[in-house]
Amino acid sequence: MEVKIEPLKGFTTQIGHLVSQMNYARRTALKAVEGLTATELDYLPSKDGNSIGALLLHMAAVEKGFQIETFEGRSPNEEEMKEWGAAYSLGEQGRKKINGQPLDYYLTKLEEIRHRTLKEFERKTDDWLYENTPWAHHSSNHYFIWFHVFEDEINHRGQIRVIRKMLTNE
Amino acid sequence: MEVKIEPLKGFTTQIGHLVSQMNYARRTALKAVEGLTATELDYLPSKDGNSIGALLLHMAAVEKGFQIETFEGRSPNEEEMKEWGAAYSLGEQGRKKINGQPLDYYLTKLEEIRHRTLKEFERKTDDWLYENTPWAHHSSNHYFIWFHVFEDEINHRGQIRVIRKMLTNE
Repeated sequence: MEVKIEPLKGFTTQIGHLVSQMNYARRTALKAVEGLTATELDYLPSKDGNSIGALLLHMAAVEKGFQIETFEGRSPNEEEMKEWGAAYSLGEQGRKKINGQPLDYYLTKLEEIRHRTLKEFERKTDDWLYENTPWAHHSSNHYFIWFHVFEDEINHRGQIRVIRKMLTNE
Repeated sequence: MEVKIEPLKGFTTQIGHLVSQMNYARRTALKAVEGLTATELDYLPSKDGNSIGALLLHMAAVEKGFQIETFEGRSPNEEEMKEWGAAYSLGEQGRKKINGQPLDYYLTKLEEIRHRTLKEFERKTDDWLYENTPWAHHSSNHYFIWFHVFEDEINHRGQIRVIRKMLTNE
């Protein structure tokens, strides 16, 4: 297997680097959940923890949210909040609303949303990536926001690995 | 606060991007362990899990290992393996050997090792970053290896957050 960070065909230079990193993060996240059943995806590591299923849907929700913000320049509307709010916030809401689904449910969501990101990235330039935009009250740029999308995914992949280990030990 | 991914003064373009990302990962990792006591740093989330202290030393060990490989072009020697082996491998070895230390012990190691990385990066060029080099039997480049250093840190930062939550709930 080849694992390199480098420019990618079909994208401008920096976007290619970013996509290399997003691809690696995604590949390892998918590897971390391979073969999990619906029951395993619902398992809570502690009573106020998050299930692996909720973490997967959270990854999709974060990406969806930043698509809306950076591609459409707006905040999520009421309908989008209703669909994605629980996955975005996790915690109490996530535990109540995200469960009973097989792995494919989560993988399909992740795949659909990523598909749109890559389509949009094909049309964007490095100048767009460096454009300033606020992030959670910080001075930031589009590059950081999309870095954050994959770094949040890696953070939760780490948690998924711990939860999966707890599952196996039960 | 400013959070951007962009070129950084003192480094070539791509190395600057990489350092922006490493800085952010480090800042959030340090934030995740703020104020922890030696006892909390030794807490095991499960009997075959890793303590937060061990995960911190692991971050330092990974960076140290890739310094030796990519800056010196060799494998760790016996002395280095003795000093860093347990932190690199984690698991049984880590549980036995890494404990009883205050937070500053770990922070000093992280800081010392990062200091060297940045010094070396100041002298490196983007060409060096794209140089091919194997990674764990994969075809890879220096850029990936240093991406991996911070992505592994983010992975463990995610785990630290879960363990810290378990600690608080006990």
